[in-house]
Amino acid sequence: MAEPFVPPLPNPALYTNQHHEISIGPSPPLNPGPDDCVVHMRSNGICGSDIHFWHAGRIGALEVTAPHCLGHEGAGEVVWTGSSVSHLSVGDRVAVEPGVPCEKCRECSSGNYNLCLDVQFSGVPPHTGSIRRYHVHSARYLHKLPDELSFGDGALLEPLSVVLHAFERSPVKLGEATVICGAGPIGLVALAVAKASGACPLVVTDLDEGRLRFAEKFVPGAIGIKIRAELGPEEMAGEILKQVGAAGGERPRVVYECTGVQGSVVTAAFMPRPAGEVMVIGVGRQTMNELPFMHISMAEVDLKFINRYHHSWPAAIRLLQHGVLNLNPLVTHRFPLEQAVEALTASADRNSGSIKVHIEDKEGLTGETVREKSKL
Amino acid sequence: MAEPFVPPLPNPALYTNQHHEISIGPSPPLNPGPDDCVVHMRSNGICGSDIHFWHAGRIGALEVTAPHCLGHEGAGEVVWTGSSVSHLSVGDRVAVEPGVPCEKCRECSSGNYNLCLDVQFSGVPPHTGSIRRYHVHSARYLHKLPDELSFGDGALLEPLSVVLHAFERSPVKLGEATVICGAGPIGLVALAVAKASGACPLVVTDLDEGRLRFAEKFVPGAIGIKIRAELGPEEMAGEILKQVGAAGGERPRVVYECTGVQGSVVTAAFMPRPAGEVMVIGVGRQTMNELPFMHISMAEVDLKFINRYHHSWPAAIRLLQHGVLNLNPLVTHRFPLEQAVEALTASADRNSGSIKVHIEDKEGLTGETVREKSKL
Amino acid sequence: MAEPFVPPLPNPALYTNQHHEISIGPSPPLNPGPDDCVVHMRSNGICGSDIHFWHAGRIGALEVTAPHCLGHEGAGEVVWTGSSVSHLSVGDRVAVEPGVPCEKCRECSSGNYNLCLDVQFSGVPPHTGSIRRYHVHSARYLHKLPDELSFGDGALLEPLSVVLHAFERSPVKLGEATVICGAGPIGLVALAVAKASGACPLVVTDLDEGRLRFAEKFVPGAIGIKIRAELGPEEMAGEILKQVGAAGGERPRVVYECTGVQGSVVTAAFMPRPAGEVMVIGVGRQTMNELPFMHISMAEVDLKFINRYHHSWPAAIRLLQHGVLNLNPLVTHRFPLEQAVEALTASADRNSGSIKVHIEDKEGLTGETVREKSKL
Amino acid sequence: MAEPFVPPLPNPALYTNQHHEISIGPSPPLNPGPDDCVVHMRSNGICGSDIHFWHAGRIGALEVTAPHCLGHEGAGEVVWTGSSVSHLSVGDRVAVEPGVPCEKCRECSSGNYNLCLDVQFSGVPPHTGSIRRYHVHSARYLHKLPDELSFGDGALLEPLSVVLHAFERSPVKLGEATVICGAGPIGLVALAVAKASGACPLVVTDLDEGRLRFAEKFVPGAIGIKIRAELGPEEMAGEILKQVGAAGGERPRVVYECTGVQGSVVTAAFMPRPAGEVMVIGVGRQTMNELPFMHISMAEVDLKFINRYHHSWPAAIRLLQHGVLNLNPLVTHRFPLEQAVEALTASADRNSGSIKVHIEDKEGLTGETVREKSKL
Repeated sequence: MAEPFVPPLPNPALYTNQHHEISIGPSPPLNPGPDDCVVHMRSNGICGSDIHFWHAGRIGALEVTAPHCLGHEGAGEVVWTGSSVSHLSVGDRVAVEPGVPCEKCRECSSGNYNLCLDVQFSGVPPHTGSIRRYHVHSARYLHKLPDELSFGDGALLEPLSVVLHAFERSPVKLGEATVICGAGPIGLVALAVAKASGACPLVVTDLDEGRLRFAEKFVPGAIGIKIRAELGPEEMAGEILKQVGAAGGERPRVVYECTGVQGSVVTAAFMPRPAGEVMVIGVGRQTMNELPFMHISMAEVDLKFINRYHHSWPAAIRLLQHGVLNLNPLVTHRFPLEQAVEALTASADRNSGSIKVHIEDKEGLTGETVREKSKL
Repeated sequence: MAEPFVPPLPNPALYTNQHHEISIGPSPPLNPGPDDCVVHMRSNGICGSDIHFWHAGRIGALEVTAPHCLGHEGAGEVVWTGSSVSHLSVGDRVAVEPGVPCEKCRECSSGNYNLCLDVQFSGVPPHTGSIRRYHVHSARYLHKLPDELSFGDGALLEPLSVVLHAFERSPVKLGEATVICGAGPIGLVALAVAKASGACPLVVTDLDEGRLRFAEKFVPGAIGIKIRAELGPEEMAGEILKQVGAAGGERPRVVYECTGVQGSVVTAAFMPRPAGEVMVIGVGRQTMNELPFMHISMAEVDLKFINRYHHSWPAAIRLLQHGVLNLNPLVTHRFPLEQAVEALTASADRNSGSIKVHIEDKEGLTGETVREKSKL
Repeated sequence: MAEPFVPPLPNPALYTNQHHEISIGPSPPLNPGPDDCVVHMRSNGICGSDIHFWHAGRIGALEVTAPHCLGHEGAGEVVWTGSSVSHLSVGDRVAVEPGVPCEKCRECSSGNYNLCLDVQFSGVPPHTGSIRRYHVHSARYLHKLPDELSFGDGALLEPLSVVLHAFERSPVKLGEATVICGAGPIGLVALAVAKASGACPLVVTDLDEGRLRFAEKFVPGAIGIKIRAELGPEEMAGEILKQVGAAGGERPRVVYECTGVQGSVVTAAFMPRPAGEVMVIGVGRQTMNELPFMHISMAEVDLKFINRYHHSWPAAIRLLQHGVLNLNPLVTHRFPLEQAVEALTASADRNSGSIKVHIEDKEGLTGETVREKSKL
Repeated sequence: MAEPFVPPLPNPALYTNQHHEISIGPSPPLNPGPDDCVVHMRSNGICGSDIHFWHAGRIGALEVTAPHCLGHEGAGEVVWTGSSVSHLSVGDRVAVEPGVPCEKCRECSSGNYNLCLDVQFSGVPPHTGSIRRYHVHSARYLHKLPDELSFGDGALLEPLSVVLHAFERSPVKLGEATVICGAGPIGLVALAVAKASGACPLVVTDLDEGRLRFAEKFVPGAIGIKIRAELGPEEMAGEILKQVGAAGGERPRVVYECTGVQGSVVTAAFMPRPAGEVMVIGVGRQTMNELPFMHISMAEVDLKFINRYHHSWPAAIRLLQHGVLNLNPLVTHRFPLEQAVEALTASADRNSGSIKVHIEDKEGLTGETVREKSKL
């Protein structure tokens, strides 16, 4: 029987509520079980969905009806292990895979645990998120970080997992032209993953010139194309394809849609070559209109969708460990845990120039620890 | 050098025009080339798209701007062969594969000749259709009928090909529940093909009770479910799934949408199990609205589409030849070529009770020929 | 807490041992846990591997080193349920899925639980088999039989699962010619499954004329071809392909190898069309020689393999329930449990004319029960 | 009508014959047709199969029965175009795709033109190879080189195509460990392609230490492992997997076999994780023995094969053009056309330290041309 966990420090947490407010407050009490660990969260990323829960109070059927602690992109240090936990020890540096599935249902037993309807997902109501100091999580969904990865890297494994799952469902082939719609955090990770997959030429689109320039610097060789609101989707698609061709590419087989915006999805639908596909990663709306069914039927363009990821952390870790990807430049802003409200605000403010905002907690790290372990 | 073809009989053809009229008139003159055959058409099916060209004057970008001869579901007897034709002889009984692709483009060379942009497709403007007595066609796209198949069977190979291509792209697995949306000709063929693929239980939906009863008789064991217009798509989907479950089935992995109607597509999107798909066979509209993107993202339900078929005739022929399928009961009405206008009218009239209407031409068949070859 | 299970009747079991003897003896004591059920086995099939354990004493690394109770194809009646079992009750008629995987390893969590290295498989040393009256089994791997299925049907679900898994990995397409190598129980089930999948024409090969005639009767329309030992594999393959062609078929894309005999595997390798595959279901030898690598490289013919099955029982049950398949004619011999030794002997004796031998136990079935439940 | 082609310079060609001799002699006369171009070959690579035709006089059924001009890895300058050629002009720099398929058969029409039985493949008897000054080739199978590619790059597109086709059939996933068996030219290209695909960690095996060191330099980060002849295949596989694990990798899903040597194929068969595969690229022997069928059945490891490539040149060109791959370091030796015999000798001599040997022809390149076009 493990000793009960007694937090050595206060446990502040970032909350939103049904009135669209955000604040720092004490975390709910922790009740870790025998299969759990307690993790001192050292780094937490902010995701668009966190902003969405704050501003809109819901995503689909998932609704904020009470004060709710956010966060699902995190890494930290194990400070307590349940009595049944054997593969982790206190002091281990780990990344949090936020979704803990039931492991019993058909989806879980088929390998698609991301589609489990009973998943307990950190930071999605009613499950407490990881933007707090001490977070309880099933040990099975904590992944040990090798020395090469910082806690910040660990927090980036979650958005990387989203993209890896999309590329697992819709892989790009070597030497294929690829278009990524949207240069937000997910679009940028997708761009990096496309490059790491050997796709070329690479095109990324966005309404925001600043993001396009960022993208071109982040992934050298990528071509940023500004979406011109005055053009219709088919016309805009034609413009993009012209530039793909000018860069030596054929019409792309897969287009990765990372915005969830209707105009972008419709534009994406006009781009793939016959027998191609649109991988819709970004989702924001309950329903979509104006889908060009006649066109995608004639061209046999499939629409594919993803919901999170499964089995992705080990590969994601290896990609950073072996230097295949370096996502660090995406973290444009860092705030200490105490300023989590400011962090969320900066993340929501497009004028802040933020791409990915990280919340860090160095509390309790001293001397040796800082040098050897933290790598914040 | 082959003798030029001199038609032994008049060559009446079925026309529509830009004024939405239909009539019988003389076929345009025939100019068969060295790779062509002339076929005395013995049987022609009428397709919903023929009605659409008549009533709407266009399908997408394909427009009736002048008198246009309809028809692309046909079979007949070779009466002339070009000088380069070696695999067919006068007297051969053949089915017409209506699309003649360019054989040069990327799609043709990749095996997807159905997606060739330069395809010459019988009965699609400006290409002359096969509802006439003598039809010119590339010999490479004429398929010899074995003795077991009648000309009527031969004319059914085209809608069967559409469905086979859909099942090639989205195969059903043995023992899987399957839902077919729509009990029109394509839906009914899909139902038969699902049964021949070992799917069970089988469900087919329609607004029309008569068609559902027809379906249940055509494919014994199939369960017809009436679409209730007063229910929303998600609710209707729930009702259908309840009946699938009652019949011992799990939530279907693939749902085959055969109507092209928006409400049906949206309903279909709510049915597949997680990681499933909707195979959209039917298309009628330029764009679609109200697609439940949040739902299909969360469930990873893909939307897949088809455009016609490729390489399907040989398998289609074998399926009829070996008795795996019998589609004959779908032909509810038969008219002689001279009454092609009446045939089209009956096909367009939902009160006629027609499923598939065939136009036959027995002219010139006598004695022995009738007995041995015609099998009309 | 459930009552401990007290067997109402003696529990005889069929044993083999390291001296290649077979006998009936008392079952080891039963210690069912909270997740288990005790099943009164009503029907058990004998598999080639049972014979192999008896005659050869091992299959690969799995060795009979002590008296070992055989059997893994069974169905029966639940007579006791553990305290955690909620989906089954005493009196339920169930089929036994013999492999109970660990549910923790990578293969289990990926959906391939058949590849779990820690699987506990009934009848494979050291795990007690189901050829006994009372068998303990994890409730999760017991599948309720609908009324339409007899216990004998239930026992046939195991070999059917093997074949369904092979067809899941290597599906045949509608209207494709198919060759099944071997007309033993697995080959015959494969033949029936190929027919139920819409394949045509169907060819089955064997050295034994009697089995071929059985096959042709079991699956009407199938063509039995005798393997002529005096021909080399390539020549024999050519002969088979000639008959496929004569029956209207193209060169098959998939050939299902169900013998595990080297000559048959090599012959199979010469049959598929370019870009085709051999699905190797039957395995008997540690290594294989004489694989025609140059040929299969030039033709891009893949060799695929299976090990048992996963998630197959529900579909297998539906296929029998809905009459898509009827495997009953395969059961040529039936013995009561007391004559299990005679049953195994008949199964091993090729002169017995046996295909599938079933061991039945009607003990304790009376009146109503017999009529309503047993359906032996 | 095009002017007939009159060679401005002599046309020396590299020959082998049925007596296993090699020599330089005058090319057979050129008879280019309306769909052909004549190419002044500027660079030709030597392939193991060229050596094989020289030393063994045959590969499978393809036999050297008369003086035969070798070579199928080449690039050069168009010096004449047939009257039907529209996409190429005199002066264009092109790579030769050596196989010209029939474009009529089932394989061609299905997109697998590499499996065409009537392919005319440069340098394979009886088709004249490209190691000569002027080579006639179908314009459709000549691919324009962008400015970024040298003729040497152009000649490397052929072995790259082999590997791209293997990775098309058996793609590696991002972050997956990969083992390449064999550090010869194909193995090294496979290693580079695996890296460009995002695989990690990367392991390459060979008997030759020198080649392993070359590999580690060519693809930084790759781990070279020497095959120890004294170990059995299973044991050797275990050693390799240990090192994969030490580098942070999981058991590889795909192992690429690039030697065609039996011991290597068998070792490869023991490496993939369950449900994995061996992609057999290298082939040398008519038949293979000692395949561990029991193991690969239990583990469901598939054996997949390739024969050349299809549709690969455009992607291969883009990969070099965009700097995704740089294969130049593989060219360790260069000889002028006049010394083609010495080139072949060096290529065949493992002590020469040669990896890829190129034969170049700068004849007729002067001033401007050399600077702007040759890029040898």
